[in-house]
Amino acid sequence: MKVAIMGYGTIGSGVAKVLDTNKDIIKERLGEPLEIKYILDLRDFPDDVHAKCFVKDYKDIVKDKEVKLVVETMGGVEPAFTFVKAMLEAGKSVTTSNKALVADKGAELMKIAKDNDVNFVFEAAVGGGIPIIRTLTACLTGDVIEEISAICNGTTNYMLTNMEQYGSEYAQILSEAQSLGYAEKDPTADVEGHDSCRKIAILTSLVSGKNVDFNDIPTEGISKISSTDFKYAKSMGYSIKLIAKSVKCGDTYSCRVAPFLVKPEQMLYHVAGVMNAVSVRGNMLGESMYYGAGAGALPTASAVVGDLVFLARNTDKHVRIGWANEKLELANPSQQKYRYFVRTAALQSNIENEFDEVKYTDLDLDDETAFITAEMTEAEFNERKIALGGAKNVIRFF
Amino acid sequence: MKVAIMGYGTIGSGVAKVLDTNKDIIKERLGEPLEIKYILDLRDFPDDVHAKCFVKDYKDIVKDKEVKLVVETMGGVEPAFTFVKAMLEAGKSVTTSNKALVADKGAELMKIAKDNDVNFVFEAAVGGGIPIIRTLTACLTGDVIEEISAICNGTTNYMLTNMEQYGSEYAQILSEAQSLGYAEKDPTADVEGHDSCRKIAILTSLVSGKNVDFNDIPTEGISKISSTDFKYAKSMGYSIKLIAKSVKCGDTYSCRVAPFLVKPEQMLYHVAGVMNAVSVRGNMLGESMYYGAGAGALPTASAVVGDLVFLARNTDKHVRIGWANEKLELANPSQQKYRYFVRTAALQSNIENEFDEVKYTDLDLDDETAFITAEMTEAEFNERKIALGGAKNVIRFF
Repeated sequence: MKVAIMGYGTIGSGVAKVLDTNKDIIKERLGEPLEIKYILDLRDFPDDVHAKCFVKDYKDIVKDKEVKLVVETMGGVEPAFTFVKAMLEAGKSVTTSNKALVADKGAELMKIAKDNDVNFVFEAAVGGGIPIIRTLTACLTGDVIEEISAICNGTTNYMLTNMEQYGSEYAQILSEAQSLGYAEKDPTADVEGHDSCRKIAILTSLVSGKNVDFNDIPTEGISKISSTDFKYAKSMGYSIKLIAKSVKCGDTYSCRVAPFLVKPEQMLYHVAGVMNAVSVRGNMLGESMYYGAGAGALPTASAVVGDLVFLARNTDKHVRIGWANEKLELANPSQQKYRYFVRTAALQSNIENEFDEVKYTDLDLDDETAFITAEMTEAEFNERKIALGGAKNVIRFF
Repeated sequence: MKVAIMGYGTIGSGVAKVLDTNKDIIKERLGEPLEIKYILDLRDFPDDVHAKCFVKDYKDIVKDKEVKLVVETMGGVEPAFTFVKAMLEAGKSVTTSNKALVADKGAELMKIAKDNDVNFVFEAAVGGGIPIIRTLTACLTGDVIEEISAICNGTTNYMLTNMEQYGSEYAQILSEAQSLGYAEKDPTADVEGHDSCRKIAILTSLVSGKNVDFNDIPTEGISKISSTDFKYAKSMGYSIKLIAKSVKCGDTYSCRVAPFLVKPEQMLYHVAGVMNAVSVRGNMLGESMYYGAGAGALPTASAVVGDLVFLARNTDKHVRIGWANEKLELANPSQQKYRYFVRTAALQSNIENEFDEVKYTDLDLDDETAFITAEMTEAEFNERKIALGGAKNVIRFF
């Protein structure tokens, strides 16, 4: 069975490496080999083992009827969308690792795949090597999914783990992560939570069957988290993790991406460094968690190749996933309820005026008081916070 | 689509409950409803909501061509094997939660399913609600699986967690677990590791593609673990977990079920109570872990219903899983290498004669010395242990 790879960067060349290294076992599992016929890239790779496969025009792949399976690892929405659409319309199944494409055009591409009786899959777009997409769409299919909580960005988890372990400040660990290649030159997408936001939008679309617009999800990153926050967290026995959360709420879901205080009894507490984990609660299954490498060339490529095996096993039909183009109206996030950890310069008497029931957490800092609120809605909390004259930082309890 | 359930005990009635409770979302995912047409049980359930579905002869199901999907939740090898075989031969796909049946007859039933162009699946047979079977057979298909380490028996994990937390003795916590219904009246299969052994045999068969005889796997349970062992473990910063392990070794695998000393940096350390987890290392993916409820009516039934959705999506063809009847000759377990924790009445001079390089772990007990060996093979360790005059207890480091 012939495969085309579009985009020969880190992930695309990783896919070639997985197909080469594991060709025997893949052949055994499929009953036939997976062979790379084309690699689409504008650059030249004359010394590459697959040098003969390179093409510069995606139409060379479109018109070759022998190619039934296509990998998209270019990144970005365009021209990836145009190319993937053309492949699906030409009767080829596609797997992509491109979360921007999936978050933006997933439902549309799914419909095109269905109309052309082929498949569009994207295991590698969320959680890298963790098979969370297939778990949700092909395993936990007997359950109503009540909650998903994900540590799904390796860069920020690496940074938070380091801040916790070594007491580093945010700016210091960011430049360290950049020099190690764990964070990009422009780290906004990671550190401000946009990447995690797109991923929880995809997962929520899959479990709701409708289309979640990632712009609707309130999103905070980790750039306000300091070593002082970690000192407080430690004194309370907690850690701080950037969590993308989606909770069933009537007929819809309520989503948020933010740093949360997590305790050791919760499995996400133990997810350290660049590892990712997705915790899923089903109404019959109860709690479950899926843990693994959330990024990196080979783990991500491993997920792409797993998708290729799935596509090869299903070349004869469209496998229903249930992601309609109809928009899912998310629940009002201001009605989400949390307990809040608050650092403020306000006086204790003011705190007790605004928040009847509080628990103080003291680090003996001169210029601030820290406390934990009772559970209340975002709307109520924000009202009281304004009355208090604001806060230096606020972190929700998970 | 019509379903038959064989065996209306805890799991079988759980399956009916999942199908009833979640019928809307299952219909949405499948495009058509799953309806129970028959329930096979020798007992009468006149007040059950499905009272009209009960039959006492499995042949009533065999001969009804409308039934394409069958659930086997009777337990035990016979008559389950005879019934399942008849269903497959009649062109019906089967899902089972019965690990005894799968460990004993899995490869044979897989061949029968293939010959009849139907499917035989068993997600619920290992790890309860954790979708580890589909993860191995349909997700991590691009990887060579290098290692599987599983906490896959909820009873023993519950007991060990309690011994650790409350300092209880084995006999005391066993009788407590029995009175809570977490352990059976005859607890042998759980506490002596036989249940875990069957499960790692199934998982190893799936990743090797050949048939593992569970009788070939060296198996120790937890009945020799005492509160004193936990005191030593705690003093070293470790926990003790019953782990079923399978490691790739050339063209085959090397397996063992035994209690292991696990440290907090290892995710399995954090798996507490009745929860289960399976850690999987792929040659491309690296480390991953799958965590959830390993037992209980609804989590197990959730996995069975997930299988039903899979079977309903694949009524038109046999999906290759790759579990041949050919026997896998496991690697010689005496060549496995570990570091060992040893408690002995032998003199320190004797210990240092037999084990050159040791690290002592002292709890100030009068009648014994405890030490940790360097890494060595089982064969070498056993030779030295005999020369030492034996040991009170030995626990391997994970």
